[in-house]
Amino acid sequence: MSEPGRLTHLTESGAARMVDVSAKDVGVRTARASGRVLLSPAAVAILRSGEVPKGDALGVARLAGIMGAKRTPDLIPLCHPIALHGVEVDLAVADAGVEITARVRTADRTGVEMEALTAVTVAALAMIDMIKAVDPAATIADVRVEEKTGGKTGVWTRP
Amino acid sequence: MSEPGRLTHLTESGAARMVDVSAKDVGVRTARASGRVLLSPAAVAILRSGEVPKGDALGVARLAGIMGAKRTPDLIPLCHPIALHGVEVDLAVADAGVEITARVRTADRTGVEMEALTAVTVAALAMIDMIKAVDPAATIADVRVEEKTGGKTGVWTRP
Amino acid sequence: MSEPGRLTHLTESGAARMVDVSAKDVGVRTARASGRVLLSPAAVAILRSGEVPKGDALGVARLAGIMGAKRTPDLIPLCHPIALHGVEVDLAVADAGVEITARVRTADRTGVEMEALTAVTVAALAMIDMIKAVDPAATIADVRVEEKTGGKTGVWTRP
Amino acid sequence: MSEPGRLTHLTESGAARMVDVSAKDVGVRTARASGRVLLSPAAVAILRSGEVPKGDALGVARLAGIMGAKRTPDLIPLCHPIALHGVEVDLAVADAGVEITARVRTADRTGVEMEALTAVTVAALAMIDMIKAVDPAATIADVRVEEKTGGKTGVWTRP
Amino acid sequence: MSEPGRLTHLTESGAARMVDVSAKDVGVRTARASGRVLLSPAAVAILRSGEVPKGDALGVARLAGIMGAKRTPDLIPLCHPIALHGVEVDLAVADAGVEITARVRTADRTGVEMEALTAVTVAALAMIDMIKAVDPAATIADVRVEEKTGGKTGVWTRP
Amino acid sequence: MSEPGRLTHLTESGAARMVDVSAKDVGVRTARASGRVLLSPAAVAILRSGEVPKGDALGVARLAGIMGAKRTPDLIPLCHPIALHGVEVDLAVADAGVEITARVRTADRTGVEMEALTAVTVAALAMIDMIKAVDPAATIADVRVEEKTGGKTGVWTRP
Repeated sequence: MSEPGRLTHLTESGAARMVDVSAKDVGVRTARASGRVLLSPAAVAILRSGEVPKGDALGVARLAGIMGAKRTPDLIPLCHPIALHGVEVDLAVADAGVEITARVRTADRTGVEMEALTAVTVAALAMIDMIKAVDPAATIADVRVEEKTGGKTGVWTRP
Repeated sequence: MSEPGRLTHLTESGAARMVDVSAKDVGVRTARASGRVLLSPAAVAILRSGEVPKGDALGVARLAGIMGAKRTPDLIPLCHPIALHGVEVDLAVADAGVEITARVRTADRTGVEMEALTAVTVAALAMIDMIKAVDPAATIADVRVEEKTGGKTGVWTRP
Repeated sequence: MSEPGRLTHLTESGAARMVDVSAKDVGVRTARASGRVLLSPAAVAILRSGEVPKGDALGVARLAGIMGAKRTPDLIPLCHPIALHGVEVDLAVADAGVEITARVRTADRTGVEMEALTAVTVAALAMIDMIKAVDPAATIADVRVEEKTGGKTGVWTRP
Repeated sequence: MSEPGRLTHLTESGAARMVDVSAKDVGVRTARASGRVLLSPAAVAILRSGEVPKGDALGVARLAGIMGAKRTPDLIPLCHPIALHGVEVDLAVADAGVEITARVRTADRTGVEMEALTAVTVAALAMIDMIKAVDPAATIADVRVEEKTGGKTGVWTRP
Repeated sequence: MSEPGRLTHLTESGAARMVDVSAKDVGVRTARASGRVLLSPAAVAILRSGEVPKGDALGVARLAGIMGAKRTPDLIPLCHPIALHGVEVDLAVADAGVEITARVRTADRTGVEMEALTAVTVAALAMIDMIKAVDPAATIADVRVEEKTGGKTGVWTRP
Repeated sequence: MSEPGRLTHLTESGAARMVDVSAKDVGVRTARASGRVLLSPAAVAILRSGEVPKGDALGVARLAGIMGAKRTPDLIPLCHPIALHGVEVDLAVADAGVEITARVRTADRTGVEMEALTAVTVAALAMIDMIKAVDPAATIADVRVEEKTGGKTGVWTRP
């Protein structure tokens, strides 16, 4: 937060811009984000049941998250197009729904927390799409950065 | 929920598929979804301050949400490519952060709740991208369908 | 121009929106747009010369224009995703540069003038990309709608 | 212009190709392009009027231009996919219409003049989309590179 | 084949165009395409082995095929953007490799054989990407339309 | 093939991932792939005939292949987004159909064989789209990597 009270993506007159990062160092940067899809007990029961091939349901959401991370600069207007060197998305069925974690890694000039958040949210959206006929009230919650490393600011861990 | 206990996007053997909707009626369908970006008091103060051109910050997120709705079939693996006939995204600064609502309308063969949810989440991601230098702990919460109309199931309102 | 003095893509409070067209009739709508790439005499001479395979240079620009028309809703934030039922892009070498015309046709709920303008501009950009090593001062000029038909407003011809 | 009379994007037999730049140096390169949307006095008056939220109209076009720059390799068939490290798009209302300037910066292997031109033209298209109900004769004019720096050829300024 | 000896996607003078289909009837049209990825016995053994989670390997390719079908108009320059109402992609491990079948269904104005072929080829490419470290010589073979129905020409079955 | 019997794109538990390549060296890597579109004698005769502008038919397929190479990370779920520094696609009419070769070159952290294969298959799909009204039985065959260079494994040539 080099300039408190200023949004770095806006010029002094308030116009949106893609901030110049050409002078930043190329270096390894990572981010880990998490989030949840809150589901009804009936929906959780289906995902846990042996009758339904749970693997493919979670597998679709996982792949959507990985592919979503690659679409980040298409979706977020002021995000830089960036090399992505590794993406992992984990989904686990819990009592309250599905827990999602994304880990993103790059060797480039900007952080990858937006890519990690995008991976989590797109995986969550795909999960809802799979389950919405059973649980139309499914809710995305608690999507946030857990940790980021690299760059001038070094390691940041969620307080 | 025509087939309790079955995920409609999976075949009987569990393989993912894009469900055939060619026999569904073309008709007006709408969906309204909402969500929030939880922010620190300092971030809220900046968005509310007269010194910062708040309009453009929220304007970027609004536009990201509208454009995001159009990318839904690119992001959600089993979503149908669909005509979108109207999209509105509202953002309002509240004490706890930014409240987001999306309204989507179509005259096509499938519902548009995934488009509304995608509009909300992409607007939320763009909002976080704008504010993350000030508040790296910003969190997306409570993203969910509020109401949908049209199609065989008619009106559904969040219980 | 149903509401003089109002930009239809903005709500009363000035927020951007994708205007609802779900109540509009499906009908055949067409648009023709034109534009030019102004080039140096040397660049025109190369395009006209028998030594250079002119066909492929113009062919690349033509195809870029056709494909560009399909990307219109990705590029123009408030444009509706729309069915495109026919696109033709013509390029002709003239003394001052390359003349471009695009004709677009649809049977859908909104006009296709933005698709025609996008086809012309993307063809022009591709033409510049081909010729820029020879003529770095190449300029796009006079990109405009020549005629549109269909919809409630019927035929409009450039005055 | 290393090979006068040859289009570098075509092979000797005239086939289109993406030119190999893998041996070029990575270095900071910039480009500035400009263009105009010519509008009727009535349209200019609306943009200048206090009654209409001018900010958001220009804001939509600005954002479209920034996002358009990122789509350059999708639109221009022989353009390299390239890292973009900074993009600014300025719009100003003048008597004859809207003046647009784009500045693009990268640290990569090819110049970014096509990205700057694409930012200007997509911003211009979005501007027309916003105003076309009021001024269906709006015209894009004078889109051209003003200056580029970096690479083997160094600084080029429009003569 | 209404005009023997003429390529319908080219004008009389040989220029590419997107053929006008606005006058065609909206109706149900289907296509089925198939193809194969030829693999080494070692690669087939891995896919069949219980040690490797075969499901997810084939699941990635299946999903890539479904999503690839949606990208058809982005990839094939003269293809119409079209509504897709149902897509299924099946993969089966055989002695010689992986057999792929895609079924696509729409209620629109053009046939969907290109969408079915694209689904098969993208699934095949994704399959190769998964297995290429084990079998760098993997080969795509026999990609072709098996059957199409609907439209003026009715049912066509591969001779 | 560093880990025989393991698919590198799957974790030990079988979940898909984008493999981390941030520690790999940046270096020049190339790939050459080939493939064929098998056509009826009548279709070959049309492509060879002087009456039909063969150039543009093959030109469309060539451009589709080049642009397709750029879409590789959008299509192949676990492919890294990668800089492409050179792409050439050659098409030649032979007795049995059209022969396609793609050469791709990069200076980045991963190989480009998937990009070369994608260029060949997309060119083949576009070729079929051009000729399908004349030869609905056109078939894609023998798509495979011929040679790759660069990276830790060095030169690989098809056995």
